[in-house]
Amino acid sequence: MAPTHRVAAIQFEVKPVAPEENHARACTLIREAAAQGAELAVLPEFHLNGFAPTNPLYATQATTSPHYLKSYQALATELSISIVPGTFLEQHADPTPPSTTQPHPPNEDKNKITNHYYNKAYFIGPDGSILGSYIKRNLWISERGFISPPPASQAAGPARYPVFDTPIGRVGMLVCWDLAFPEAFRALIAAGAEVVIVPTYWTNNDASPALRAINPSCEPLFLSSILTSRCYENTCGIIFANVSGSASDSPDSSSSSGKYIGMSRVVMPIVGTVKTLDAREGVCVADMDMGLLKLAEENYCIRGDVKGQKWIS
Amino acid sequence: MAPTHRVAAIQFEVKPVAPEENHARACTLIREAAAQGAELAVLPEFHLNGFAPTNPLYATQATTSPHYLKSYQALATELSISIVPGTFLEQHADPTPPSTTQPHPPNEDKNKITNHYYNKAYFIGPDGSILGSYIKRNLWISERGFISPPPASQAAGPARYPVFDTPIGRVGMLVCWDLAFPEAFRALIAAGAEVVIVPTYWTNNDASPALRAINPSCEPLFLSSILTSRCYENTCGIIFANVSGSASDSPDSSSSSGKYIGMSRVVMPIVGTVKTLDAREGVCVADMDMGLLKLAEENYCIRGDVKGQKWIS
Repeated sequence: MAPTHRVAAIQFEVKPVAPEENHARACTLIREAAAQGAELAVLPEFHLNGFAPTNPLYATQATTSPHYLKSYQALATELSISIVPGTFLEQHADPTPPSTTQPHPPNEDKNKITNHYYNKAYFIGPDGSILGSYIKRNLWISERGFISPPPASQAAGPARYPVFDTPIGRVGMLVCWDLAFPEAFRALIAAGAEVVIVPTYWTNNDASPALRAINPSCEPLFLSSILTSRCYENTCGIIFANVSGSASDSPDSSSSSGKYIGMSRVVMPIVGTVKTLDAREGVCVADMDMGLLKLAEENYCIRGDVKGQKWIS
Repeated sequence: MAPTHRVAAIQFEVKPVAPEENHARACTLIREAAAQGAELAVLPEFHLNGFAPTNPLYATQATTSPHYLKSYQALATELSISIVPGTFLEQHADPTPPSTTQPHPPNEDKNKITNHYYNKAYFIGPDGSILGSYIKRNLWISERGFISPPPASQAAGPARYPVFDTPIGRVGMLVCWDLAFPEAFRALIAAGAEVVIVPTYWTNNDASPALRAINPSCEPLFLSSILTSRCYENTCGIIFANVSGSASDSPDSSSSSGKYIGMSRVVMPIVGTVKTLDAREGVCVADMDMGLLKLAEENYCIRGDVKGQKWIS
């Protein structure tokens, strides 16, 4: 019998530049997930302070991520649960140039050692240890003026898209806009990833007014089709945790209204969406049947073909 | 104003080893499409004789494709319509070994010059000329004992996934199981394809009974998610023509019942499915608004990023 893992994708409305408040909310929801028997809880991208690069507080807060990371490590140990605390905005003083020609943060003195801001995810095991990390590579357009892709030392090879063993199987992590690039998934499954964890800050406003006038559900359609598609085309499971609106702010749960999409979900091949949330705050607890991956591979042989580079070469 | 092209995806129940009957049906449906103003009509994969490799007649019929190709060229000229006559099973006597180690067709004398069977699509322009062709590369598992991938001369470079100019824009063609491989789409859009045409012979039975017991709509879910996803992730349009059941054989139009899926459709980014059929025979006539591609690229910049190899490298 293949194992089944109970996992939780957590979504809530992230308040800009309010890390203490967001951290407290996240901890409450992680406790809810643990109470429902989840082995793993995943938070959204930028879950501590949102995305507010023009706010003077924002860059300062990028130095506080080690403090919050330690707090989540302690919580993981206390609850004996794995935690992916979405992503942190992290400041790194890095004497080496970034791997692409990113513009510098606007408020930076170019004569100093370059400070890079990374968008970074961690996987914390149930004993509090850090089992893996990933710096977002495929930056969304509005991030590109402020956040750097990984440093040159991680520009190639397995470090590009790291894969590591966890209590729920072999895991890779991607962040938000990485979803649009099938190449990122291919690199992970070539290294044996069974589950891909995707913290996200994806809103309806990522489509321009022109696009939303044509289809108000433009972004939810993008997400729902691509998440299911990635599971089929790579024979992997996905845990997707997105930001949401608060329940009181979003009385209409339709994902096509307002800024927030939510849709945090667990997706697998064969069945597609195992369980999903609407646009409102919540904890999506779902059982991932790892046997589905074996059955899908027996039928489609995609991982075997990709590994052999036989049919796509 | 970006142009809008009226196109037709045609589906019908292909009778095994009955090319004359299938050809006649196809011609009737192409005339219907032309009467509705379509500039292009696309038929399903193996539309002349189905997939019946164990039938002794099947290999023999692979020699008749030039006859039917000429007939479609004449029809294109008569109606002044572009036609993609699905795919032909074609026999080629080829002294060079195939590009991968395919097993030989079971009834072949290994001492003779090797006969290869290809699964080949053509694009016929409205003046009857052949504007492009493509030999299916990513063969479905049951094809691999009988059909060869393209010859070694087409194993690399632009010939691998050819792209060509047509009255509806720059076009690439893929066939059926190619859909599962995002790499194939990436090769096409790197060469500038705006529309990808996909003749298909995809049935519910491509999922094993074990998979269908878990989700009777396993294959329709695969197809619907991947077609929309490919349009978003590549900023392209897709014309998808699949085999179907006859109307009388499929009184229940639900795509999860019976052998046939149908679902022939036109798909674009932003809007997803422009128009679709259910599992029954028919002609799906839809207007492709090429302006959607421009709007999508302005918003997502995916083709620009892929071309620059900037974010995915």
